[in-house]
Amino acid sequence: MSHDHLIEKTLSSKTIYEGKIIDLTVQTVQLPNGKEAQREVVLHPGAVTVLAITADDTILLVKQFRKPTERVLIETPAGKLERGENPLESAKRELEEETGYQAKEWKHLASFYTSPGFADELMHAYVATGLTLKQQNLDDDEFLDVLEVTAEEAQQMVTDGQIYDAKTLACVYWWLRERALQGKA
Amino acid sequence: MSHDHLIEKTLSSKTIYEGKIIDLTVQTVQLPNGKEAQREVVLHPGAVTVLAITADDTILLVKQFRKPTERVLIETPAGKLERGENPLESAKRELEEETGYQAKEWKHLASFYTSPGFADELMHAYVATGLTLKQQNLDDDEFLDVLEVTAEEAQQMVTDGQIYDAKTLACVYWWLRERALQGKA
Repeated sequence: MSHDHLIEKTLSSKTIYEGKIIDLTVQTVQLPNGKEAQREVVLHPGAVTVLAITADDTILLVKQFRKPTERVLIETPAGKLERGENPLESAKRELEEETGYQAKEWKHLASFYTSPGFADELMHAYVATGLTLKQQNLDDDEFLDVLEVTAEEAQQMVTDGQIYDAKTLACVYWWLRERALQGKA
Repeated sequence: MSHDHLIEKTLSSKTIYEGKIIDLTVQTVQLPNGKEAQREVVLHPGAVTVLAITADDTILLVKQFRKPTERVLIETPAGKLERGENPLESAKRELEEETGYQAKEWKHLASFYTSPGFADELMHAYVATGLTLKQQNLDDDEFLDVLEVTAEEAQQMVTDGQIYDAKTLACVYWWLRERALQGKA
């Protein structure tokens, strides 16, 4: 089906800021009805996240202060893509850096935009199993705690509103649904 | 448990851009180890999204071009909070504007950050049932198609990678899991 009645064309684009992680542009676009509008667009290199399931049927989560939110968040291990980095390699790197674990089996779960209204960040989510503990190796400016939670605990954390991160909710709901289909609690 | 070993303190903040939807600041922070770092922070007014379930056991999705991604996305109806607007009122407004539906029952599903690494956007997700069709009333610069999909179709769209939006995946996985718990396909 044609999407011509939905598409906006870029007429011009102005770079407002070029940063360490994000750039900001303001674009003038032509709407499907011919009129013009402005779009504020944050450019991001993309990111990965990992739902790591242990042999004990628990998942690894990280607790981390996130400056933009001014809160400590509980999240699936995640990080941004380095320049030219393959998403799966990035996921393996981030899991090991943040939690110290390596995984034998990797499966692509989904790729998704996190904030399509104002940013182009595309996140790739993987399921990792067959875990072996190696060594945590955080970035210089990274501080986090690793948690290991059961399905019951994850469910409780979702219900209680202790998990308030989109990618983590998507991964946890996916996991709980897989378990429900398998007849697990 | 204390989070002092995770917290970053703001030493200074510089406003780079004040836009129509987002602002951009660059903050100098003191890390837990006493060192300094820069954080790029996008400020956003917050947003809502609605998982609207019809009497036919289908959900309403909208197909929309998202300029930052340069792609047409399939999403749960969503929008940003107007100044001072209550999230539930915003959800009711967005559902009706985008799809033409009003709902009798509203339930808070979850609230979550969409991109906590670089933005403070907090999104509130609701489940809406008891739907009645009124009239679609899009913003001047908004163009979208409304879809109505069954659980089987939603599952297929997720598996095929036709849904690549974080909030929508979280809502759809949640719905599919609720159905699995109820013994529905």
